[in-house]
Amino acid sequence: MSDTIAADPMTTPFLQCLVGRIRAEDAFGAWDRKSDTTLLKEYIITKAERRLIPIIGDPDPDTLGRVETFYQAVGLAIERATGVIATPMMNMSHEGFGRVVLLAGRLVVFSRTLRDVHRFGFEDLSALAADGMKHAAQAVAMIEAHPELARE
Amino acid sequence: MSDTIAADPMTTPFLQCLVGRIRAEDAFGAWDRKSDTTLLKEYIITKAERRLIPIIGDPDPDTLGRVETFYQAVGLAIERATGVIATPMMNMSHEGFGRVVLLAGRLVVFSRTLRDVHRFGFEDLSALAADGMKHAAQAVAMIEAHPELARE
Repeated sequence: MSDTIAADPMTTPFLQCLVGRIRAEDAFGAWDRKSDTTLLKEYIITKAERRLIPIIGDPDPDTLGRVETFYQAVGLAIERATGVIATPMMNMSHEGFGRVVLLAGRLVVFSRTLRDVHRFGFEDLSALAADGMKHAAQAVAMIEAHPELARE
Repeated sequence: MSDTIAADPMTTPFLQCLVGRIRAEDAFGAWDRKSDTTLLKEYIITKAERRLIPIIGDPDPDTLGRVETFYQAVGLAIERATGVIATPMMNMSHEGFGRVVLLAGRLVVFSRTLRDVHRFGFEDLSALAADGMKHAAQAVAMIEAHPELARE
């Protein structure tokens, strides 16, 4: 993990973008006194907790919102690194399956099949930061390889 | 219109794909005795009819399904012309606004902002065929310009 993530995961551009996206939803300042790590707790699910979450039926709107915010933050981290806006599009079918892409201009800079979205979460902040940074890095490489399409 | 659309719009690959997509939904053969032009009638809205459709609130699921089927058919027409699968992704926000894209591999081969989706429809079959064929042609040109990304 230490290859990609600094000693403190909170200093990664991805977690900074994710905190920014979460706080942007807080129009009335109700979370002003909550710390960044407290706000990120909704993304932390231990292995034991994960097993207790049923994967039957459609994920609830809170879970879907959390997943969407995660990929919006990946998009913001990409924009911070390249200056190119990367917009997420997410299509869920049923039972927690779906697809998420990040689009920059004419380029699909990131594409992933989603499954068991009910259980979307990470062991700890380092794992959360590492996953977001990994996706952003892939997308940045894609933009650098095809800058003319990304800026179209 | 005659530049792009044959004398009979029903012979265009796009309308053939659209009829195919509509009939694919008819699992029990209830529409077997309906003609192709009858099935396409749901896409025909005259100017007078259009004015009567309110654009307040979210479009109903039938309308959204019709729009989605339209772009699926564009995707099928693209596949027929190039052998490359083009998958639609549609995100609707509220009040009939949204975005639809067609993705082929790493390429956004088509992208369009949707508005007033409540009134999605065409004056006649020629206009319907022309619009679908125009989108497909743009996407095919995009795939031919970047075949390696489209096939990734």
